[in-house]
Amino acid sequence: MSNEQNQKQAALVIGAGDATGGAIAKRFAKEGMIACVTRRSVDKLQPLVDEIRAAGGQAIGFGSDARKEEEVIALVDQIEREIAPIEVMVFNIGANVPCSILEETARKYFKIWEMACFSAFLVGREVAKRMVARKRGTILFTGATAGMRGSANFAAFAGAKFALRALAQSMARELGPHNIHVAHVVVDGAIDTAFIRDNFPERYALKDQDGVLNPDHIAENYWYLHTQPRDAWTHELDLRPWIEKW
Amino acid sequence: MSNEQNQKQAALVIGAGDATGGAIAKRFAKEGMIACVTRRSVDKLQPLVDEIRAAGGQAIGFGSDARKEEEVIALVDQIEREIAPIEVMVFNIGANVPCSILEETARKYFKIWEMACFSAFLVGREVAKRMVARKRGTILFTGATAGMRGSANFAAFAGAKFALRALAQSMARELGPHNIHVAHVVVDGAIDTAFIRDNFPERYALKDQDGVLNPDHIAENYWYLHTQPRDAWTHELDLRPWIEKW
Amino acid sequence: MSNEQNQKQAALVIGAGDATGGAIAKRFAKEGMIACVTRRSVDKLQPLVDEIRAAGGQAIGFGSDARKEEEVIALVDQIEREIAPIEVMVFNIGANVPCSILEETARKYFKIWEMACFSAFLVGREVAKRMVARKRGTILFTGATAGMRGSANFAAFAGAKFALRALAQSMARELGPHNIHVAHVVVDGAIDTAFIRDNFPERYALKDQDGVLNPDHIAENYWYLHTQPRDAWTHELDLRPWIEKW
Amino acid sequence: MSNEQNQKQAALVIGAGDATGGAIAKRFAKEGMIACVTRRSVDKLQPLVDEIRAAGGQAIGFGSDARKEEEVIALVDQIEREIAPIEVMVFNIGANVPCSILEETARKYFKIWEMACFSAFLVGREVAKRMVARKRGTILFTGATAGMRGSANFAAFAGAKFALRALAQSMARELGPHNIHVAHVVVDGAIDTAFIRDNFPERYALKDQDGVLNPDHIAENYWYLHTQPRDAWTHELDLRPWIEKW
Repeated sequence: MSNEQNQKQAALVIGAGDATGGAIAKRFAKEGMIACVTRRSVDKLQPLVDEIRAAGGQAIGFGSDARKEEEVIALVDQIEREIAPIEVMVFNIGANVPCSILEETARKYFKIWEMACFSAFLVGREVAKRMVARKRGTILFTGATAGMRGSANFAAFAGAKFALRALAQSMARELGPHNIHVAHVVVDGAIDTAFIRDNFPERYALKDQDGVLNPDHIAENYWYLHTQPRDAWTHELDLRPWIEKW
Repeated sequence: MSNEQNQKQAALVIGAGDATGGAIAKRFAKEGMIACVTRRSVDKLQPLVDEIRAAGGQAIGFGSDARKEEEVIALVDQIEREIAPIEVMVFNIGANVPCSILEETARKYFKIWEMACFSAFLVGREVAKRMVARKRGTILFTGATAGMRGSANFAAFAGAKFALRALAQSMARELGPHNIHVAHVVVDGAIDTAFIRDNFPERYALKDQDGVLNPDHIAENYWYLHTQPRDAWTHELDLRPWIEKW
Repeated sequence: MSNEQNQKQAALVIGAGDATGGAIAKRFAKEGMIACVTRRSVDKLQPLVDEIRAAGGQAIGFGSDARKEEEVIALVDQIEREIAPIEVMVFNIGANVPCSILEETARKYFKIWEMACFSAFLVGREVAKRMVARKRGTILFTGATAGMRGSANFAAFAGAKFALRALAQSMARELGPHNIHVAHVVVDGAIDTAFIRDNFPERYALKDQDGVLNPDHIAENYWYLHTQPRDAWTHELDLRPWIEKW
Repeated sequence: MSNEQNQKQAALVIGAGDATGGAIAKRFAKEGMIACVTRRSVDKLQPLVDEIRAAGGQAIGFGSDARKEEEVIALVDQIEREIAPIEVMVFNIGANVPCSILEETARKYFKIWEMACFSAFLVGREVAKRMVARKRGTILFTGATAGMRGSANFAAFAGAKFALRALAQSMARELGPHNIHVAHVVVDGAIDTAFIRDNFPERYALKDQDGVLNPDHIAENYWYLHTQPRDAWTHELDLRPWIEKW
């Protein structure tokens, strides 16, 4: 549903620390929504907030740990009370750390799930409560290849991403009839980020031929999902470069 | 990829006889593409062609049986030679006829596959040849719930739709690296058509609350898929009403 | 359900020309069932029939083209009338012929579907009619990797195998409540056959380390599926070598 | 692989508190393996241990909390040191507690994952270390319908079961080439347990017509998976009653 005039709306982007989260925040801000962006350290959000404001948009950064229930509750409460109703929530925290099952630590297995899935549950539940009361809203979860297939050495990350997909499906089925659009976006490929540039230079070299995902293009799809009329909602969307093997 | 100025492009819609095919043709025509619409009987296409032209668009109707190889070859040849390069092909022929496996006739089992799958192969192959030579193009197949799940009494239709999905996947993987975007759209729900209105009145009554898919909204998604930049292509998109059980 | 004493039962194996079909026929014959084995040329079945008989089992070869409705009807009729009720039917015809979508002929696309899917429909339907009347029976379809994923250059074979899987699912859902167990076996890997030995020698060399599927082991799984009590039926079973990539 | 003579083997069943875990333990004990059965309270295991011993088998009960890393490490260590090499591990802890996403507590969401998934990771990793050293072993995870589909009101349970399936897939792909067979069993239906009898009487009434899964029949499938030769391993097996809707 589109942003109506004269009515403030917040777009909450959890995990706006990377290129994708930032691009999504900018995309929703461009439409007049107030981008409420979070990551653990608020300081690192300043460049993003500044960029949105410089472009004429509204943005507010929040230092918030999405794994902490009380922080999530407080965050959603504050935005709803002081800023605007949350019209869209995008969950964008990843934790792609491969490891042999033989070497995986309990701590890391837990941390990856906590970051990539438990946080999503906490934020998803809190915003769902508000959206159900208003009978409107969009909730988008950023998934990955690992959410569709458990590859060797990816037990932890695949576990978290499978569970995230289950969350998205379950919420979509429960909340759809409340007029809340929940969707799962499967990003299947390398994104144009500093991480890929620095760690996978051969992969990054494909950027010249559009072989890595442009965060702005990913963001466009999130906006698109948000604007779909409710008689024709998409619940799962895959995104990959034209030359990607899949 | 977007329609460039001063360069004619054809959007070939196979099976433009129903509301969905018609809406898709109108959507692409609105962007300046020449809508080449087909169904077996050309006469029945006139209202659609007239409507597109009245709106300032270009459209040409073709009586063509997509199950006949020679007709398909001639159709693609004629469009490419006389009208414009085919930039987009949408395959939209369905054949949703449930039947117990015990009662299904060989003739009907074949006919359903021939209509909903074999035709898609023929047209897909012919346009792919042209698109590969140009290294550009979009091919979209209209799928259905039956392409994801073989329900009781749907052996024939599910068989055809599963096979169509296989075709879409195989072509996407082979043709992607040729810069041809192939996608499969899973329409999961009743569409606002005369057929649903007349045969499923209870279902149709949900239209008031957006419980049936609006063909124009379906069409919007086809256009969207066509315009995705190639670093972030979607290969499968589901569409269903907010209150649909899935 | 197990073969009861003093009651003749036929196990119909369609496509017993290769190692897998032969092994399945032998496995069911070993349990006292009358192996009714088919391929287009009956002469080529003689070694298999002889082998089963030499081992003390019963076997009858039929030259029968499973793509021809009248032949299938006659075959099932003859077995039921002259030999024994068909307790199990195994459909085992493949047609794994890769080809670029650009080069695929309409004739070959059709032939592959006709062999690997349409035949399965014809035989499945005919035996289902008899089994439904008796409220018992097992129908097993040999699937493949290509039934789960449409790879590049496999549009025809994947189409046929996807459609076969749809048939298996649809029949399983419709016929299960009639006490007929329908299952789809996904053979995901190279089988120990002359074809693999002659055409994929590198692959075949893995046989020494159990890297190719032993037809007798595949057959064991078919027997196992047949004997599952009806409170715990399997509808899809994958089989692959331990070192297979999947 | 079969149990060789004169060589003791342990079958570790985690979560042997219910009918299914008990039946699995009995099945493996029947083949001469030493059933090492666990649940949180060792006292409640005594009847199962007694039953196995009365039947001439060997069994040892362990009070062990599979969610506690140190307990899992100690358990595996003790069995391997004092009893026998663990040849098979079956993970059988469930936690099927439906709840609206709006009411789900963080504590319960975590607990369900911890019980049904994190425990599986801990035990799976520990036994995998031993099995990889020996280059042999079987690891079986009990899955559920909720591992394949995220239904409304099942965000927590589906999340845990999706993650469990990811674990099984990832371990299967990594450990297969070490000669370790990892499989995921999808139990899709009500099992003949006191829980179903007491809470779903209508469902339980279907037992008369084999409409609920018999734990012994489930167990048979676990034994079957364990005995599959390694050239033809199954990695996912579904089990459901003949009259189950799916």
